[in-house]
Amino acid sequence: AEIARPVGICSMMRLPVQDSSEGLDAAFVGVPLDIGTSNRPGARFGPRHIRAESAMVRAYNGGTRAAPFESLMVADIGDVNVNLYDLKDSCKMIRKAFKKIVSTGCIPLTLGGDHTIAYPILQSVAEKYGPVGLVHVDAHADTSDIVLGEKICHGTPFRRCVDEGLLDCKRVVQIGLRGSTYEPDGYLWSKEQGFRVVTGEDCWLRSLAPLMKEVRQQMGNGPVYISFDIDALDPAFAPGTGTPEIAGLQPSQALEIIRGCRGMKVVGCDLVEVSPIYNTSGNTALTAANLLFEMLCVLPNVKYH
Amino acid sequence: AEIARPVGICSMMRLPVQDSSEGLDAAFVGVPLDIGTSNRPGARFGPRHIRAESAMVRAYNGGTRAAPFESLMVADIGDVNVNLYDLKDSCKMIRKAFKKIVSTGCIPLTLGGDHTIAYPILQSVAEKYGPVGLVHVDAHADTSDIVLGEKICHGTPFRRCVDEGLLDCKRVVQIGLRGSTYEPDGYLWSKEQGFRVVTGEDCWLRSLAPLMKEVRQQMGNGPVYISFDIDALDPAFAPGTGTPEIAGLQPSQALEIIRGCRGMKVVGCDLVEVSPIYNTSGNTALTAANLLFEMLCVLPNVKYH
Amino acid sequence: AEIARPVGICSMMRLPVQDSSEGLDAAFVGVPLDIGTSNRPGARFGPRHIRAESAMVRAYNGGTRAAPFESLMVADIGDVNVNLYDLKDSCKMIRKAFKKIVSTGCIPLTLGGDHTIAYPILQSVAEKYGPVGLVHVDAHADTSDIVLGEKICHGTPFRRCVDEGLLDCKRVVQIGLRGSTYEPDGYLWSKEQGFRVVTGEDCWLRSLAPLMKEVRQQMGNGPVYISFDIDALDPAFAPGTGTPEIAGLQPSQALEIIRGCRGMKVVGCDLVEVSPIYNTSGNTALTAANLLFEMLCVLPNVKYH
Amino acid sequence: AEIARPVGICSMMRLPVQDSSEGLDAAFVGVPLDIGTSNRPGARFGPRHIRAESAMVRAYNGGTRAAPFESLMVADIGDVNVNLYDLKDSCKMIRKAFKKIVSTGCIPLTLGGDHTIAYPILQSVAEKYGPVGLVHVDAHADTSDIVLGEKICHGTPFRRCVDEGLLDCKRVVQIGLRGSTYEPDGYLWSKEQGFRVVTGEDCWLRSLAPLMKEVRQQMGNGPVYISFDIDALDPAFAPGTGTPEIAGLQPSQALEIIRGCRGMKVVGCDLVEVSPIYNTSGNTALTAANLLFEMLCVLPNVKYH
Amino acid sequence: AEIARPVGICSMMRLPVQDSSEGLDAAFVGVPLDIGTSNRPGARFGPRHIRAESAMVRAYNGGTRAAPFESLMVADIGDVNVNLYDLKDSCKMIRKAFKKIVSTGCIPLTLGGDHTIAYPILQSVAEKYGPVGLVHVDAHADTSDIVLGEKICHGTPFRRCVDEGLLDCKRVVQIGLRGSTYEPDGYLWSKEQGFRVVTGEDCWLRSLAPLMKEVRQQMGNGPVYISFDIDALDPAFAPGTGTPEIAGLQPSQALEIIRGCRGMKVVGCDLVEVSPIYNTSGNTALTAANLLFEMLCVLPNVKYH
Amino acid sequence: AEIARPVGICSMMRLPVQDSSEGLDAAFVGVPLDIGTSNRPGARFGPRHIRAESAMVRAYNGGTRAAPFESLMVADIGDVNVNLYDLKDSCKMIRKAFKKIVSTGCIPLTLGGDHTIAYPILQSVAEKYGPVGLVHVDAHADTSDIVLGEKICHGTPFRRCVDEGLLDCKRVVQIGLRGSTYEPDGYLWSKEQGFRVVTGEDCWLRSLAPLMKEVRQQMGNGPVYISFDIDALDPAFAPGTGTPEIAGLQPSQALEIIRGCRGMKVVGCDLVEVSPIYNTSGNTALTAANLLFEMLCVLPNVKYH
Ligand SMILES: [Mn+2]
Ligand SMILES: [Mn+2]
Ligand SMILES: [Mn+2]
Ligand SMILES: [Mn+2]
Ligand SMILES: [Mn+2]
Ligand SMILES: [Mn+2]
Ligand SMILES: [Mn+2]
Ligand SMILES: [Mn+2]
Ligand SMILES: [Mn+2]
Ligand SMILES: [Mn+2]
Ligand SMILES: [Mn+2]
Ligand SMILES: [Mn+2]
Repeated sequence: AEIARPVGICSMMRLPVQDSSEGLDAAFVGVPLDIGTSNRPGARFGPRHIRAESAMVRAYNGGTRAAPFESLMVADIGDVNVNLYDLKDSCKMIRKAFKKIVSTGCIPLTLGGDHTIAYPILQSVAEKYGPVGLVHVDAHADTSDIVLGEKICHGTPFRRCVDEGLLDCKRVVQIGLRGSTYEPDGYLWSKEQGFRVVTGEDCWLRSLAPLMKEVRQQMGNGPVYISFDIDALDPAFAPGTGTPEIAGLQPSQALEIIRGCRGMKVVGCDLVEVSPIYNTSGNTALTAANLLFEMLCVLPNVKYH
Repeated sequence: AEIARPVGICSMMRLPVQDSSEGLDAAFVGVPLDIGTSNRPGARFGPRHIRAESAMVRAYNGGTRAAPFESLMVADIGDVNVNLYDLKDSCKMIRKAFKKIVSTGCIPLTLGGDHTIAYPILQSVAEKYGPVGLVHVDAHADTSDIVLGEKICHGTPFRRCVDEGLLDCKRVVQIGLRGSTYEPDGYLWSKEQGFRVVTGEDCWLRSLAPLMKEVRQQMGNGPVYISFDIDALDPAFAPGTGTPEIAGLQPSQALEIIRGCRGMKVVGCDLVEVSPIYNTSGNTALTAANLLFEMLCVLPNVKYH
Repeated sequence: AEIARPVGICSMMRLPVQDSSEGLDAAFVGVPLDIGTSNRPGARFGPRHIRAESAMVRAYNGGTRAAPFESLMVADIGDVNVNLYDLKDSCKMIRKAFKKIVSTGCIPLTLGGDHTIAYPILQSVAEKYGPVGLVHVDAHADTSDIVLGEKICHGTPFRRCVDEGLLDCKRVVQIGLRGSTYEPDGYLWSKEQGFRVVTGEDCWLRSLAPLMKEVRQQMGNGPVYISFDIDALDPAFAPGTGTPEIAGLQPSQALEIIRGCRGMKVVGCDLVEVSPIYNTSGNTALTAANLLFEMLCVLPNVKYH
Repeated sequence: AEIARPVGICSMMRLPVQDSSEGLDAAFVGVPLDIGTSNRPGARFGPRHIRAESAMVRAYNGGTRAAPFESLMVADIGDVNVNLYDLKDSCKMIRKAFKKIVSTGCIPLTLGGDHTIAYPILQSVAEKYGPVGLVHVDAHADTSDIVLGEKICHGTPFRRCVDEGLLDCKRVVQIGLRGSTYEPDGYLWSKEQGFRVVTGEDCWLRSLAPLMKEVRQQMGNGPVYISFDIDALDPAFAPGTGTPEIAGLQPSQALEIIRGCRGMKVVGCDLVEVSPIYNTSGNTALTAANLLFEMLCVLPNVKYH
Repeated sequence: AEIARPVGICSMMRLPVQDSSEGLDAAFVGVPLDIGTSNRPGARFGPRHIRAESAMVRAYNGGTRAAPFESLMVADIGDVNVNLYDLKDSCKMIRKAFKKIVSTGCIPLTLGGDHTIAYPILQSVAEKYGPVGLVHVDAHADTSDIVLGEKICHGTPFRRCVDEGLLDCKRVVQIGLRGSTYEPDGYLWSKEQGFRVVTGEDCWLRSLAPLMKEVRQQMGNGPVYISFDIDALDPAFAPGTGTPEIAGLQPSQALEIIRGCRGMKVVGCDLVEVSPIYNTSGNTALTAANLLFEMLCVLPNVKYH
Repeated sequence: AEIARPVGICSMMRLPVQDSSEGLDAAFVGVPLDIGTSNRPGARFGPRHIRAESAMVRAYNGGTRAAPFESLMVADIGDVNVNLYDLKDSCKMIRKAFKKIVSTGCIPLTLGGDHTIAYPILQSVAEKYGPVGLVHVDAHADTSDIVLGEKICHGTPFRRCVDEGLLDCKRVVQIGLRGSTYEPDGYLWSKEQGFRVVTGEDCWLRSLAPLMKEVRQQMGNGPVYISFDIDALDPAFAPGTGTPEIAGLQPSQALEIIRGCRGMKVVGCDLVEVSPIYNTSGNTALTAANLLFEMLCVLPNVKYH
């Protein structure tokens, strides 16, 4: 029997809820942490609201005809617990939880949470797969070394990942970077590591399909992680976030990026930085839910009609 | 291990979720219906938001020292499905679902939904227990015969209940009635049935503990149903509702009413008319979650420290 | 046939709209002005939103059994035009428009607009009736002489009225005054004129029925004008206003005040300072609509059941 | 004399209000229904808010130099009454009301309301003009057969229209379709009927003027109905709607579509699915008001300077 | 020359800004920290919004005729810097900053920030004055030992203070405690220390002036610190906070409490837990600004007219 | 030491605050006026909110590598005082204040305030520099002669400027004009003066870099003033404004326009019409803060890395 949209306990896309990733090809998992945030907090409620709005998302991808649920076993495995009073301890808890998730080969699709969480997640992912390629979509490079005296926060995750050798630096692309910066060249360090940097300006009024063809080549056959910061989008499309930067990506470009990842060996994905209280219509969370569904659709072995 | 408040799939008070009322003394259950609403809709999202905000509610009642979970088996059994396009059909679905819930002796604590749902719920409750006493807290009598040509809507449930003999009319009290009316005496019909009518004006600036002493006497030992329309509260305390009326109850009075029901043979409860989008802070839903917890605390056999 | 609440062009209480006060005992009229405001603007949209929310108000007063429409011819005569770029010119336009309204003996019930408008309205009212008694409900005395170098603004109307002899000073009461002040005794001038001053503190946690008995005596048989600034209410009950002051009146007290005016020779009323954008639920406007209805109910010759 | 924007009873574009379409070339008419909605309700308040925001719309089209009021008699004829508790009954009421409106040759420009209303409107339009061509702008095809067990709701109107032969299927175009779907090919049925389907993806970052040239050819000289669901727009531009889908049309594209209808024999138009409470700035309603004005500008016989 | 309310750089009450407490009798100071928050964050923006809304507060206390600026040198000394990524480190920074502030005898009036900050502030205050009496107004006791495994957060400050001997336990009163609790008696530990506990229930519908007479006796002549958590107020009056509890204090009671502290030897005050984004009208911050002004008015040596 | 974003008294970009423009190359200055507004007010709070959100803006321009603070002395000189009750008097106050600011050669970057303020600012600027070229970005031409009977309001500033010879008409460009108009050709008068008019339609889906090349030629070597009305942007990107018009500029186009002004002899800039209450996330103010920073970056003599 059909179930009305407002009906039911809120799991991601109204999928079954289970405790572990056992037996799953892919799992939605929340990380409700926001104490790595430099400006507006609230991303701790990202997972709750993304799940709530995901009741609108249906089983098939109307744009690409992907049918992920015909090929993959997918569930919502709830949230990783965090220590809201200690960021470093939270990172340890997250790393440990994801180690378990990826251990069975299950692909995590993470509902953030601020971007700090990408660091412990990538620790676990790289521990399983070795250094990974990275499709990082964001307004910010998130490669600072130290912010307010700290090594760990939402401005530093990819610096830490490089420090620890978790990334295959030639297979890293950062898309959507823009805004004012602390240094004359805010993306210099990225370029020095061998990352491809695609600025917001590079994306203005332009299809990103050609870019993504090149990115697919860049990624080759190695494992790839997708980390999507919702602030990559222009704040008009995602006002519910903590450090918005004007003149960002359009949702069609976000879809081009994610759909352009089809064919890569994606081993994990996250969608971070949704701070729902800054957008009370729920539409930023709805956007996040759709982008997570699109990521699911490009996982290896998904059937397309 | 302690779990942080934003963590986890949203069930009522983070209780376990199960499919049926099997084995439960009491069950939280949602009815996400709002097409019985005459003015502002949105109560279909009441259950979702009440659950979300209920993460703030802890296990013990600081005011009364009730410890419901030390005495009762309680769970969240999810939502009753509804037909959002047919109000009468939804009523049938609700009646059927509650018949099953109450069949095992489980006491339903319902998260509404608009007040229409009290009618099919009371059909099932009365089928189990016979005509029940009613503690009805509301700005409105909800005893119209026909509204916009219809017999069933959120303005008529208690008229229908009387029509069908579901209420023990001498054991009915309506508390908080106020506002402009369609008739010179808007509560005449209630009084003619033998209901006790306590208007909003009767409650101004006054403790309701004395009233509730009398109500406990009125209710005697028979089965009692509590139906709490959030609009009984002044709109300052519960702005997220569809038909607010000014000069309503204070939350302390709401607590006096519910706590005053201790000792009655309560067989069912509902909290209805939360329309979350009209109060984006979430506080109306939070209030509803607390009131539902208070109802749980006055169920028969709850231990008090 | 019954009409659903969301249906129809928005007039006050869905009354007929007509161009002039011709043939009316009382008329609702809007004055969408807010350039007399010192802090948050937006009261220019007060009339529009009060009308919209007034669709909830029904024909009978459930609290008092007043049946105004059985005794009086009432309509909505639309808005007075204003010059949004010149406050003094607007005052002239308002004075002229109200002169016409009151000329036929019609009692205006004004939907404000900021409190500046009370000045030109009282000019017209006093021109018709001579100096009037005043029931002024407000957080502020509005008796400054000069603000920011100006004689006319929402902080000065009653000073101007006294300057021009429009008030019968022994028959003036100001209820609800409170908050921080520019002078050590912010109400000294009022007292010097012979006004009765009832502060917010005088009203805390107390029925105002006894006060209103005295006020009825004070007003005697002369003409009385009621000027109700929505900020008299505590901001919890009326957040949609420009200069809120904490610890204000409760809605029940507002009703006691207005209902306590029954029996006076009321010749005009206003409800001012609703700034709807500061309360997006619409509830401040709804409160205003109800208070205006209550004022209608205490006009001379209204039938009570 | 010029009237300030906040002044006056809210009719569409401050046009005169009249009871019937008698003597009019075109009429704005509201249908405040939302019980055909699957997700977020609130469109019942669409007409009220579109009228309120339409006070910003001036008499001439700055983009096209259309001067509709120099050629056509236009008024606001208020709202069609609906039965908020019975969707099927509401459809009958709407059909009957529109039969009367179109009977005199008046062209209705409808302020919705959810998309269900297009079905009874088209019943009346087709009864007058025979099967019509359709320019349907929407994120959704709205061609489901049965939803939640029901034949009538906002997901099915065009299926019902085809069932009843109200559409000239070769002269139907659906623009903006996108999002997740219930079937592998969500637009298959549309294509099988001979509709032209233009997906959201087809519109990304592209002028739609070339498309509209082809659509004008497709429509030929027969009667054409324009049905514009505000959710065709990207949610950034129209957050106040019930079932938003990301990556939608831009407002410039919406204008290209409507302006591209100039020269067609347009016999009716609607703008549906504005749910104002989800966008408290009023901008979604403002957008709707502008789109309705643009539709007025492309009606037959409108003068262009 | 008079300055319009919206004019000027936002300091508290538009006081002069200076870098240190040098030469001041009292100083407003902000502590924009919120990573000690268990539920809704956002109190980091408390100081910014309290300052913005404080532009409404005038120089004299209309209720008590206090004239603080005629007796005391007062300024806004800006904010204490914090480490948003490390709560324990932030506590050290705060302690150090307040040590400097109190060293000159200046009385700090702190704009919070979550309640964690009371702990390092009291460390500095007690270092200067020895163990202090405490007037703690709050919905919560904030005396947990460990939360989520941590010793320091907004649920533990007064436990830590007792651990370190910063409080004179017989001179501690906690007012407004209520809500659900983690233990059967949530206030047992407080009572065991000798604190006076006044629950929310104790305050319902009652003047607190008599209570405060007793509290003045309890406090004697020793140094007293006032710590006011905005959630002591009912959420209707202060929706912009992180852990609201229903059935709280009214603003009049808050004023009675603070005004009742007149005559005590107050050596420091804070107003904490304002999370502005949960109340976009700004009224919670406005309430906080007024309460801070009231605290200023009861400092030793303030002149009353 | 690094300062966390929420820390500190709100000046523009956390720059030092000083009383005069003495010694500065450029100064941010607020003009909190909104009584020239025809529709939604609130721009009086523009400066306060732009400053608050500007805490996000860093010192370097990531898109252009401009380093304004390496070349120019810049500060925030606070707000010009205004008479909120008299628009004409406010204009005099503004003119006088800006005369002083520009007298020392300091370039004002103005935080509005409604667009009326451009008139008195340009009086002062032209008095210093002679008739100036103008880059005017706006949805509206703002060249009406008389509105509601008045010569001065936010619809007339550039008409007044031409009346008084303040503009070098061949060096004026207006970009983004669109929407419904009061006249068949709403931009005729502009064209008659020799202004270049670039409509919203001219900008759809198009880079404006080529346009700006031409504009740089048009401006030549004479002094240029940039006046940027935030409503030039599509309301999706800047909902917090008073007279939004659909189908406007994208932020990337706004950046192209401002960055395209590099090389001109810019002598003053303003960013007007931010009405923060219509966008409670703060993002419109954040956009304004960024655009003002971009204007700073194109001032003469700014260093680029
Ligand atoms: Mn990031
Ligand atoms: Mn980012
Ligand atoms: Mn009810
Ligand atoms: Mn009710
Ligand atoms: Mn007033
Ligand atoms: Mn007032
Ligand atoms: Mn549709
Ligand atoms: Mn649609
Ligand atoms: Mn606390
Ligand atoms: Mn607390
Ligand atoms: Mn302008
Ligand atoms: Mn403009």
